[in-house]
Amino acid sequence: MAESDVRLGLVGLGTIGTGVVQLLREHGESIAERLGFALRLVRIADIDLVRDRSVPLEGIELSTAWQDVTGDTGVDVVIELVGGRGVARSIVLGAIEAGKPLVTANKALLAHHGREVFRAAEERGTEIAFEASVGGTIPVLRALREGLCADRIESVWGIVNGTCNFILTEMEEGGEPYEACLKRAQDQGYAEPDPTFDVDGTDSAHKLAILVGLAFGVEVGPEAIHTEGIERITPVDIEYARRFGFRVKLLAIAKSQDGAVEAHVHPTMIPGESVLGRVTGSMNAVEIRGRMSGPTLYYGAGAGALPTASAVVADVMELARSLRTGATGRVPPLGTPRLRPVSVRRVEDLEGHYYVRVTALDRPGVLSRITGALGARGISIESVLQLGRSVSQAVPVVLTTHVAKDEALRAALREIDSLGDVTGPTQLIRIEREI
Amino acid sequence: MAESDVRLGLVGLGTIGTGVVQLLREHGESIAERLGFALRLVRIADIDLVRDRSVPLEGIELSTAWQDVTGDTGVDVVIELVGGRGVARSIVLGAIEAGKPLVTANKALLAHHGREVFRAAEERGTEIAFEASVGGTIPVLRALREGLCADRIESVWGIVNGTCNFILTEMEEGGEPYEACLKRAQDQGYAEPDPTFDVDGTDSAHKLAILVGLAFGVEVGPEAIHTEGIERITPVDIEYARRFGFRVKLLAIAKSQDGAVEAHVHPTMIPGESVLGRVTGSMNAVEIRGRMSGPTLYYGAGAGALPTASAVVADVMELARSLRTGATGRVPPLGTPRLRPVSVRRVEDLEGHYYVRVTALDRPGVLSRITGALGARGISIESVLQLGRSVSQAVPVVLTTHVAKDEALRAALREIDSLGDVTGPTQLIRIEREI
Repeated sequence: MAESDVRLGLVGLGTIGTGVVQLLREHGESIAERLGFALRLVRIADIDLVRDRSVPLEGIELSTAWQDVTGDTGVDVVIELVGGRGVARSIVLGAIEAGKPLVTANKALLAHHGREVFRAAEERGTEIAFEASVGGTIPVLRALREGLCADRIESVWGIVNGTCNFILTEMEEGGEPYEACLKRAQDQGYAEPDPTFDVDGTDSAHKLAILVGLAFGVEVGPEAIHTEGIERITPVDIEYARRFGFRVKLLAIAKSQDGAVEAHVHPTMIPGESVLGRVTGSMNAVEIRGRMSGPTLYYGAGAGALPTASAVVADVMELARSLRTGATGRVPPLGTPRLRPVSVRRVEDLEGHYYVRVTALDRPGVLSRITGALGARGISIESVLQLGRSVSQAVPVVLTTHVAKDEALRAALREIDSLGDVTGPTQLIRIEREI
Repeated sequence: MAESDVRLGLVGLGTIGTGVVQLLREHGESIAERLGFALRLVRIADIDLVRDRSVPLEGIELSTAWQDVTGDTGVDVVIELVGGRGVARSIVLGAIEAGKPLVTANKALLAHHGREVFRAAEERGTEIAFEASVGGTIPVLRALREGLCADRIESVWGIVNGTCNFILTEMEEGGEPYEACLKRAQDQGYAEPDPTFDVDGTDSAHKLAILVGLAFGVEVGPEAIHTEGIERITPVDIEYARRFGFRVKLLAIAKSQDGAVEAHVHPTMIPGESVLGRVTGSMNAVEIRGRMSGPTLYYGAGAGALPTASAVVADVMELARSLRTGATGRVPPLGTPRLRPVSVRRVEDLEGHYYVRVTALDRPGVLSRITGALGARGISIESVLQLGRSVSQAVPVVLTTHVAKDEALRAALREIDSLGDVTGPTQLIRIEREI
């Protein structure tokens, strides 16, 4: 090993960790050529050292205690790929305390404990990099932190959960219900055995919290992000979306206006012919709008061992370069030295277009009663579709609204759902036309 | 002015230069907040100091000689926005010789003299940044240089000329001929009064030369890039493309395989429903495929004063940070310390699918004679469309081929064009299905 080589310690030999080992093996030479020195993976810690990962581990010291990595004076840079908020927090803070630059892909940790982690790194004079935490392989955090740093960002939104996008695409293409498509996602490895945090929007909210910090230089915790999942989306909604020229995507949306920020995650109808509307399967994409730059969009694999490993090792290379050139602290982790306090707009105060699907008996006057509940709250209707007639069964009454306030709409829906003609809960999906 | 402020000198107060002045005025405060010090534009040189640019210039020293900027000891960073390869080369080399970090958007200069310029900067120990030279506001060079640096890039292709994409989109949407759409592009400011270098593909070839350097770490000059423009594309071709499910885009394409590189610029039919196919108007997009990362795509405004200024000032911020943290030379301009020699594949040896439109008299046996010329050279036909019949006038015979060699196809076309039935030159457009 040459004097100038940078020695790496990895904690967490799961899917991504194994990808990192493979990438370093296969691309070690070209990486060394670019850097002018080599990266050497010298130590790995994982609680399970028995399972076969199908990657060669010779020459790497293995142990089950993460402290063996963070405490190893022979390790220059630590890679944390454990995930979650429990032990991962200890590992990250442990590495920082030991003065070691750290790479992590842990969005839950950064969304909840970002401030603590970034402050600890700053005080210790070491660096933290986390490109793989949002958008997998896509270097979208770099774009925000350095590529668009001269601009003022007005909005950032995107498809940041590949599991949800895979399921919604399958529903759209096959017309099958959510449950069947979720099962297919699990069978094909696009969804975890327990997919809760993916499908309920939690994972997207974590990523949005990180994007908001980078985009607007403010701190918004996941608990301040209104979050809905995709579990309630039906093939019927996807078919109506198509008729209106839309597709249904789980979007993470944040906007900054007049000093206030809005941040929310929910199924959204967007123009089917837009670039974002064409993002299918497990792919991710983030669109950023800047005052000067206008819209830019970043697209790629949001998950997967090797795509994510590519982002992790790029971060390692950045920190290794900082070590060797003494450039530590060149750019703060969120692109700005101090996050500003910010007021987050209540979701009830948001305004927008909406898709409303009421399930009602096809009785005389039913449309009048439904539209009356909306009109009474100042909500005007853009279009109505009432397809299929039945004297005995409930039929869908579908409408889209002009710009309406969320609060008013939800109040109207409560009245609609209490009507005698209405036989089931009304479906409400936001529409973003400007995407 | 504070001690830590970084002082900028700008050469070239044209469209982008004016955008830089405006951006620095309007975003100066937020930029200073991010950097921890301010950027001060202290000097501007332009040969025309009379024309009104509608931006305030007070407090900035103006002169007509670029040497006043590069030679000013009070200037820390030089911004070159003159364009072209003549005086711009002197300015860039002058700034480097004076030891000043330099930002440029000059793709022609870098494509032709990149090696000279980068070597001079390295020898002088100063830095050069050029994000705005490709893709306008889109931070795609950063993505290649740092975001994807752990990967090995297999291909990079994109729509990198907004003028051509605007014209092709107008032709597609309105069915109008090239000349009318070019005129509209000029009227609306999307094309220069002399649009030659845009529409003939030269500008795209310059940008591809830069992308190739970053993607593959090799040097390919613009003269080695086979380049065709959009002047010969007709509404008829665009309509046939639509029938086959394609759109026509001017693509810059580079691929690396088995140690050889191919690089070419030409109108290309790509799947209309692909993300790249949805890039309309003057927008740009670049798709990069990496061995580990898979496909990633970067989309945004490829031109315009403020979008381009956003990229220029982001570069200034990077160089200013290098100055203040002593991180100069952290990453080489093309991401690798030494470009490798490479063999560029001859365009004649390339293989692919093709669209062929023959203009022929509708005589018995004409289709057999055309397909015979192709079959004799081992080119098999995927589909044939012969629409419209006429006893007196020539009709289009349109076909698409299976994978064929460029050289064989061109030989077949020479034979076809010499047939007595054929009344005009045959149109040939490459098809990229895998986009």
